[in-house]
Amino acid sequence: MKINVNELNNYLDQEITFSGFVDAIRDKKWVMFVILRDNTGKVQMTIEKSDENNQKLLDIMTNLTVESTVKVTGKLVSNEAVKLGGIEIIPSTIEVTSMAQPLPFDFNNLDGVLIDTRLDYRWLDLRNEKNMLARQIESTMVQAMREFLYNNNFTEIHTPKLIGTASESGSSVFELKYFDRKAYLAQSPQFYKQMAMAAGMNRIFEVAPCFRAENSNTNRHATEFTSFDLEFSYIDSYEDVMSLEEDLLIAGLTKVKELYGDKIKEVFNKEVIIPTKPFPKMRLKDLYQELHERYNFDIPEHDIGDMNAEAEKLTYKLALEKYNSEFMFIVDYAATKRPFYHMRDENGVLQGYDLIWRGTEITSGSQREHRFDELAKNAKEKGLGKDVEFYLQFFKYGCPPHGGFAIGVDRLTMLLLGLTIKETQFLFRGPNRLEP
Amino acid sequence: MKINVNELNNYLDQEITFSGFVDAIRDKKWVMFVILRDNTGKVQMTIEKSDENNQKLLDIMTNLTVESTVKVTGKLVSNEAVKLGGIEIIPSTIEVTSMAQPLPFDFNNLDGVLIDTRLDYRWLDLRNEKNMLARQIESTMVQAMREFLYNNNFTEIHTPKLIGTASESGSSVFELKYFDRKAYLAQSPQFYKQMAMAAGMNRIFEVAPCFRAENSNTNRHATEFTSFDLEFSYIDSYEDVMSLEEDLLIAGLTKVKELYGDKIKEVFNKEVIIPTKPFPKMRLKDLYQELHERYNFDIPEHDIGDMNAEAEKLTYKLALEKYNSEFMFIVDYAATKRPFYHMRDENGVLQGYDLIWRGTEITSGSQREHRFDELAKNAKEKGLGKDVEFYLQFFKYGCPPHGGFAIGVDRLTMLLLGLTIKETQFLFRGPNRLEP
Repeated sequence: MKINVNELNNYLDQEITFSGFVDAIRDKKWVMFVILRDNTGKVQMTIEKSDENNQKLLDIMTNLTVESTVKVTGKLVSNEAVKLGGIEIIPSTIEVTSMAQPLPFDFNNLDGVLIDTRLDYRWLDLRNEKNMLARQIESTMVQAMREFLYNNNFTEIHTPKLIGTASESGSSVFELKYFDRKAYLAQSPQFYKQMAMAAGMNRIFEVAPCFRAENSNTNRHATEFTSFDLEFSYIDSYEDVMSLEEDLLIAGLTKVKELYGDKIKEVFNKEVIIPTKPFPKMRLKDLYQELHERYNFDIPEHDIGDMNAEAEKLTYKLALEKYNSEFMFIVDYAATKRPFYHMRDENGVLQGYDLIWRGTEITSGSQREHRFDELAKNAKEKGLGKDVEFYLQFFKYGCPPHGGFAIGVDRLTMLLLGLTIKETQFLFRGPNRLEP
Repeated sequence: MKINVNELNNYLDQEITFSGFVDAIRDKKWVMFVILRDNTGKVQMTIEKSDENNQKLLDIMTNLTVESTVKVTGKLVSNEAVKLGGIEIIPSTIEVTSMAQPLPFDFNNLDGVLIDTRLDYRWLDLRNEKNMLARQIESTMVQAMREFLYNNNFTEIHTPKLIGTASESGSSVFELKYFDRKAYLAQSPQFYKQMAMAAGMNRIFEVAPCFRAENSNTNRHATEFTSFDLEFSYIDSYEDVMSLEEDLLIAGLTKVKELYGDKIKEVFNKEVIIPTKPFPKMRLKDLYQELHERYNFDIPEHDIGDMNAEAEKLTYKLALEKYNSEFMFIVDYAATKRPFYHMRDENGVLQGYDLIWRGTEITSGSQREHRFDELAKNAKEKGLGKDVEFYLQFFKYGCPPHGGFAIGVDRLTMLLLGLTIKETQFLFRGPNRLEP
């Protein structure tokens, strides 16, 4: 396997092969400095012009464009004068592995480059240090969250994204031709996560795409996004679900801070703050009152029983001021504002929550209604008929009490690093964006 | 969190709460034995009838159906007479958390139950020990494979499944309405894995659904399946790709054998065999000749340059007989039989391979063509025009040499345990199957 820049220190004074992009060429009178780059950093290659043996190397480099790729053999030596880590490669051979045409924009300076241009050339946009780092950080966060779940005996599942009925929620669903009938794209794995509970799988999770045919252009919505979903059985209440989510986020953020905390500070100017358990929690009614008293904010009539974008922003402010926390749970949403599968207690109070982080809802969780009769009644109340019939069957043959939640992976990364959703997704998908 | 059956030994002689399904009720003259079950095993609960205090518990259990779920508090004691691990729960309270209706079939004995009935009630079918185990084993295999990649500095990505053009391969693609235009479901993340290479991401992987609109009903095809995909840069040849795949499979199988080897032997009657590196490798031409000599098999005219199902089966036989290996790499496929993005050498020889395991192709891998001019030429030769134009752009601005492969997760599990694809997927999807 290729030696990466961040591994070079293990090869000092050795003959090595190093491959990477040509980041920059600085052609001085007596020497040519070539900066080579991979996804872990940059290293200098130095070619002395006084050495006759170097003529061939100089010819190669003179004809080479930046962003081409090369494979270099040479000696890695230390040199205090070199700003990039105090090391340099003295090459003996250079092989050009690809030749770059002139780039349409400078990815090192994206100020003023339209986001649509950046997305049109996303593979160049991703060469920007920030964007490259964002991908590695997201991968690390998800890895740590998965590991936490494996260690707690969760099983990973892969639920179908092709479904037979346009079920579950009000948000629009994509429809497709499926041989001689219609199929739909899953908006979430909710029903199938619960099927796993009815199967007795106890604790499961899934990291997979979800699809929403919403024709909205905001900084945080996409028609396709990655959802980190989990569900587990034998809970006593939705407090168990909140507790697990706290542990999961702490595990993820702890690993990210450990590996990337300094880098995130340096490159994104963001602090990674590990929250402490329990996160603060407020009932919606109390929150309304406090938002009114502190910020003179009143939720609009049609959003009563729910949050809206401004309420989320102010809740973050409140969480910081009142609890010195970036996170806040909100509970006691109106049952009318929530899906039929969320459990309600004997007084009709919803047994679920939202979690607000840095001004945005990152997750909805709840205890689910696992009792067939109650569930059928709730579905009927919401006007759901034929489309959820298959789902109701899951609860006829014994099903333990259970709950769960979903976290949008893109949204998590976006908030962690202070980016927009278009900058965050590997390749953004919106109503006007299916390419590349 | 709930105490699982496989953790009970840590709680001997303690008061515990145990939740699970009622697996069986054995109502004897002097005692009632109740077998409780979760996804890790079974435990006996014993209610003595001579004890007057137990009357309430006996009433509850007498009215309870099997497959209902309960939450029990009681004392866990050891008792050598108990076949199930020599322990039993002596309950003090029993709470019924769900009541099961009579089941449509006995999931403990699936002989004679039609596969379609099993799939109609998949959440009951999954309660079968084999099926439950298969899910845990697959999860473990994927976990170990991911960990191997994390340890080798791979970054996980999430590529879009909604795409703008019906590209890549001959197999049919699902089409959907996407606002005022059409979109298609990705048949593989191939183009986007390579976009990550052009972005300089170096080493990436993805575990995600793929969609194929193939109207075929076989034991190993599905319209949606989970693909374990990876791609990495700066390779010297496709031999590097094969080598990484060997390491990856060895890592996955080693962990599976360690955690489930005995169980797989006991329940599936299958041996988990850890292969050794390098796996045997044959050129297609030599394979044809050996299959002819040994088994009098000749590949049909229209499959020349490729394999077919029978050739795969016989190759497994050959691999066992000649190399004592369950695995065999096949190389030197005809370029006409492989996608345009596979690299060919100066003689037109394809720089890719297939891997056969237990009689089935589980993976295709190759070095990819990263040179824009060559790639454009190969695409044109295959008659690909507008649909791949966006993809060709990835290679204009510098792109390192790279390669990769994909492994079907479902197929891997299927072959590991000797199941059919319908039994293996969490929820099978085929031309006639979109439910539940």
